[in-house]
Amino acid sequence: MSSTFGELFRITTFGESHGGGVGVVVDGLPSGVPVDLAAVQLELDRRRPGQSAITTQRQEADRVEILSGVFEGVSLGSPIAMLVRNTDQRSKDYDTLKDVFRPGHADYAYFEKYGLRDHRGGGRSSGRETVGRVAAGALAKGALATVGVHIVGGTVRVAGVAAKERDWAQVELNPVRCPDADAARLMQTAIERARDARDSVGGVVEVVARGVPAGWGDPTMDKLDARLGAAMLSIPATKGVEIGSGFAMAELHGSETNDVFDGERYASNHAGGISGGISNGNEVVVRVAVRPATSIGKMQSMARKDGGTEMIAIEGRHDPCICPRVVPVAEAMMAIALMDAWLRQRALRGREK
Amino acid sequence: MSSTFGELFRITTFGESHGGGVGVVVDGLPSGVPVDLAAVQLELDRRRPGQSAITTQRQEADRVEILSGVFEGVSLGSPIAMLVRNTDQRSKDYDTLKDVFRPGHADYAYFEKYGLRDHRGGGRSSGRETVGRVAAGALAKGALATVGVHIVGGTVRVAGVAAKERDWAQVELNPVRCPDADAARLMQTAIERARDARDSVGGVVEVVARGVPAGWGDPTMDKLDARLGAAMLSIPATKGVEIGSGFAMAELHGSETNDVFDGERYASNHAGGISGGISNGNEVVVRVAVRPATSIGKMQSMARKDGGTEMIAIEGRHDPCICPRVVPVAEAMMAIALMDAWLRQRALRGREK
Amino acid sequence: MSSTFGELFRITTFGESHGGGVGVVVDGLPSGVPVDLAAVQLELDRRRPGQSAITTQRQEADRVEILSGVFEGVSLGSPIAMLVRNTDQRSKDYDTLKDVFRPGHADYAYFEKYGLRDHRGGGRSSGRETVGRVAAGALAKGALATVGVHIVGGTVRVAGVAAKERDWAQVELNPVRCPDADAARLMQTAIERARDARDSVGGVVEVVARGVPAGWGDPTMDKLDARLGAAMLSIPATKGVEIGSGFAMAELHGSETNDVFDGERYASNHAGGISGGISNGNEVVVRVAVRPATSIGKMQSMARKDGGTEMIAIEGRHDPCICPRVVPVAEAMMAIALMDAWLRQRALRGREK
Amino acid sequence: MSSTFGELFRITTFGESHGGGVGVVVDGLPSGVPVDLAAVQLELDRRRPGQSAITTQRQEADRVEILSGVFEGVSLGSPIAMLVRNTDQRSKDYDTLKDVFRPGHADYAYFEKYGLRDHRGGGRSSGRETVGRVAAGALAKGALATVGVHIVGGTVRVAGVAAKERDWAQVELNPVRCPDADAARLMQTAIERARDARDSVGGVVEVVARGVPAGWGDPTMDKLDARLGAAMLSIPATKGVEIGSGFAMAELHGSETNDVFDGERYASNHAGGISGGISNGNEVVVRVAVRPATSIGKMQSMARKDGGTEMIAIEGRHDPCICPRVVPVAEAMMAIALMDAWLRQRALRGREK
Repeated sequence: MSSTFGELFRITTFGESHGGGVGVVVDGLPSGVPVDLAAVQLELDRRRPGQSAITTQRQEADRVEILSGVFEGVSLGSPIAMLVRNTDQRSKDYDTLKDVFRPGHADYAYFEKYGLRDHRGGGRSSGRETVGRVAAGALAKGALATVGVHIVGGTVRVAGVAAKERDWAQVELNPVRCPDADAARLMQTAIERARDARDSVGGVVEVVARGVPAGWGDPTMDKLDARLGAAMLSIPATKGVEIGSGFAMAELHGSETNDVFDGERYASNHAGGISGGISNGNEVVVRVAVRPATSIGKMQSMARKDGGTEMIAIEGRHDPCICPRVVPVAEAMMAIALMDAWLRQRALRGREK
Repeated sequence: MSSTFGELFRITTFGESHGGGVGVVVDGLPSGVPVDLAAVQLELDRRRPGQSAITTQRQEADRVEILSGVFEGVSLGSPIAMLVRNTDQRSKDYDTLKDVFRPGHADYAYFEKYGLRDHRGGGRSSGRETVGRVAAGALAKGALATVGVHIVGGTVRVAGVAAKERDWAQVELNPVRCPDADAARLMQTAIERARDARDSVGGVVEVVARGVPAGWGDPTMDKLDARLGAAMLSIPATKGVEIGSGFAMAELHGSETNDVFDGERYASNHAGGISGGISNGNEVVVRVAVRPATSIGKMQSMARKDGGTEMIAIEGRHDPCICPRVVPVAEAMMAIALMDAWLRQRALRGREK
Repeated sequence: MSSTFGELFRITTFGESHGGGVGVVVDGLPSGVPVDLAAVQLELDRRRPGQSAITTQRQEADRVEILSGVFEGVSLGSPIAMLVRNTDQRSKDYDTLKDVFRPGHADYAYFEKYGLRDHRGGGRSSGRETVGRVAAGALAKGALATVGVHIVGGTVRVAGVAAKERDWAQVELNPVRCPDADAARLMQTAIERARDARDSVGGVVEVVARGVPAGWGDPTMDKLDARLGAAMLSIPATKGVEIGSGFAMAELHGSETNDVFDGERYASNHAGGISGGISNGNEVVVRVAVRPATSIGKMQSMARKDGGTEMIAIEGRHDPCICPRVVPVAEAMMAIALMDAWLRQRALRGREK
Repeated sequence: MSSTFGELFRITTFGESHGGGVGVVVDGLPSGVPVDLAAVQLELDRRRPGQSAITTQRQEADRVEILSGVFEGVSLGSPIAMLVRNTDQRSKDYDTLKDVFRPGHADYAYFEKYGLRDHRGGGRSSGRETVGRVAAGALAKGALATVGVHIVGGTVRVAGVAAKERDWAQVELNPVRCPDADAARLMQTAIERARDARDSVGGVVEVVARGVPAGWGDPTMDKLDARLGAAMLSIPATKGVEIGSGFAMAELHGSETNDVFDGERYASNHAGGISGGISNGNEVVVRVAVRPATSIGKMQSMARKDGGTEMIAIEGRHDPCICPRVVPVAEAMMAIALMDAWLRQRALRGREK
């Protein structure tokens, strides 16, 4: 029921793909933090549709307005509401889908949950809901930067092609947002092939936080792993998350995966920077499994509301691979989860960092 | 900071590996639900140490006492507190570890977080904290059973050996808790080999919920994926979680992973029973990556609190593979997360299921 | 830190008296509930400044826009964001107050909390924040009406004049919003006298909920008394709250205050409709103490930020008595708290009411 | 549904008047805070039954056991569970009440809420639930003392007799816990008279926090007034709360109630130390209306479960006036609410106080 993430640093998103607009209320940003509207807009531009040949061609300018909580360039400590108006809504694309449940989509589950649905789009399950997350994440990133915490992210796997390098400077130089220029080309080809076949492909997005001091997180229910896991799996189209070596650790021995520490440096990072749920001073590394977009142009069998099935091709403009647009969202959610953990640790210890 | 999981069905665990005892307060179990002390004890027996040759030989009877909230065999609707006393505490095993940070353990992170630690054990990061979860999970399982929801689980991968079958009736017949009798033998051999080498191995645990109706969960922050992800990643030693086909979906196309639905049945279950964050009527399937136990008997380099490093072998009685004991904990956490989602859906729709 | 009230029915307000606007995100309104924009506007009109000679002459049209969560006149079950733009901001009225702390106001406390403040108004302590509450309350009222719960309210005491009648039909017929026409005239005179003396007067507002079934609320921390108490004391300028006979019960005996019940009717209502924290089927009756408005035109001694004091008269347009404008806010907060209790009880019992 | 109070400093109580015991889990006490078992026991002794001639003669030793979270006399930062066993349960006193709803009690509301009740006592509505609050409050008091915040409380009104003095040193010297020795004698007489008439009397309890720095609290939903209001109204038998001059302010003018501040001292304290929801550096003053105990020995008409009414006298040992035993509970709840506000402010500002 809840559209809220976080406790001390708390975001609440609102808005559907169709309606007046989408946005977010950010509560818990301490007072006196510089808030840069341009930085927020920049992150939204990384998320918006129509940014490249391999994203949906739906065009939305996604200009953000800050409604409250900021005065003379700094946060007031009060809630910061941000609004992005909806503009390019081609609802008629959805007309043929009014009486069917699309496979892979939330249509049926949504209908069973609410007893009704706005057939003009994905409602709250739509990727458009992430606009608010990205705007909020930009504020969290800005605040974290003041204590030396920086987040990077990129697409590290698409359709069987894996990035071998982690050259984060490459990410904004290719449309896949891959930190490996060579792999990026192969990924792009795979995505274009899927697009041309009216299909979609899945992938993996990696996000990394540098500069996180030891001591953030919690040893039990609010393990940093758990908070980051919830943050990532709350992003549309994600179906898995792993920290550090993750599932690969299932094949290894403790003598291999115990990261040796000499009091200053770690010899490895199988734990992904989190030990017993608490940051250990190493880089925090999280990977997210992104499923192929459920909206595809191929003919598919769909259940009709009134019984029976029907073969339909979903018209409209789709993302053949969501990974490039998931990258800024995953970075945002990581920033939000870390921001919350930081404030908790301040509450616990009463000091800056 | 929080030791609480869930909102409407809410558990709060307490207790360290050393101290008066461990337990849980369960708030939000509706009134009138049958509460079976024997069922709670049975789940605890599945979790307890010393149950087989491939678990730690630490012996704790782990007898549970229900302190409140139950009268004449049914829940009163008030919080149910359950307590298990600590008994077999061999604190001296930890004496040599007082001034070092064990690799892989939370020791250093914990110390940075709290400024102190109880060196006699893992504190709240200890697996012993899960006693309370399992006891609470038994209540959730009992309540879910009244609406036809049943949870099963098992070890499906250890040290490179994968279960091919999902014969859940096998699970309690082998010490690995594997739903594939043939794979179980190979896994057991791998675990014994690690144990004899004073090492440990990782694995994967799968939990499945049957009978979950469509409509549980939420489309945004409290996606059922996110809640289950947080539930699983809050279990000690877990480093990854996936729903349905999870990371494998990263290699596939939308035309393959869109589960075709004819209004009654799904032709596949790549989504793991959750679409857009909401249960879709299919089986809910979750897998958890379990790292090799960090406590191993091999000599390891450890950072000293006062600087420098030291080679030490951790004495004591360890689990060579935690998977068999993670199974009941993962089942419990799934039950708790589903219970919460069920009550939320009742709040939203005002009907039984 | 939090701008959120409620758990299942949850409102988050945003906005300062100066800035882009004020509003609210309402999360947890079940799907399919009729949402009437005109009804929301009507409640806002009852709250807005400039509505009569005894409220502030600041003029704001306060037109509300629903940004999300409503489709074809009913709620979608997703968050409903509502926005009211700020218009008539005469910031220069505040220029002389930039470097002083006004007595009675939150200026000093606010400055110590945040380290800075927007001197152009009361920030989040401003009564303007209540716009979002009233809009959210209108939705709650609408939903409660579908199960026969109706809320009324009025000013029952001002400057020593007490209402003897509870003729709720009178409330909108006099500017004091008093349910006793005779008392209303006396109250109006007292308010005008205070206004002419550049002063302000306090009072008491009463809100009553009819049709609340027995069983809403909780026996311990979330007693309905406690939730309603928090709801009322979160309204600006309130300094007390009582349920039923409240403080008067401190003078009475148990044999007088135990409301005799014959299984259908209560002979009295000292408990204000709540027994042991749970609604008992009687009318829920709450009274709120409203302090005299802190903004007065009289000369007052104010502490200077840089030390010393100064005599200053606060220019601008003030409310000589806030009670008439607190009435719709108190009704709204009662509706919000009851809505939350209703949904909790549905979660607990799984039935409509 | 929730038995939890607080967010950062969070207590969860459990236990009924009849059952294994009552207790609390305290989550969020920072690590390294001295925890004094004797101090906890001392507070429980102030609350326990049988302590004087004017409290119930039910005898319970109420010895507390700390189960977790404390090591070598300081807090570990992990949850602290505390347990008090139930001993003197004379359930047969309740046998005649099995099939009726006692007037003033929660019996009927409870039954409608849960569909069942443990007729052997008040269940969670019983005053016995406050054992856990008092134990938790002792920890909060201890932690607050480390930053110079101290809480005192007493009975300031009973049956029409008002305390004129606030000599807090008197409180433990008379059984009424009144800070005015002369008034105490009159109050005691009134209470004994009620007791002899098999009746009960109400009163008012006042709690005061000294040393609270400016800046704790929040300007909107979590106003310190609102948090303290919820804390107080969650105590059994309370029906009103006021901060500072409270309801008396309804009779006054702004020029009287605006507390003049010279930058160091306040000339008055009508606001009770809270301005705009935030502590202003003045003493925090809260008063609570306590209703006459609902359990009285007089004959009363009671509704029968199966219809009709019956005249019954409630046997057993009752409190003729609850105020003396409410004092430690109100102090505890104030400490808990302030502790939470303190930790929030540390999160916001990142400094000790």
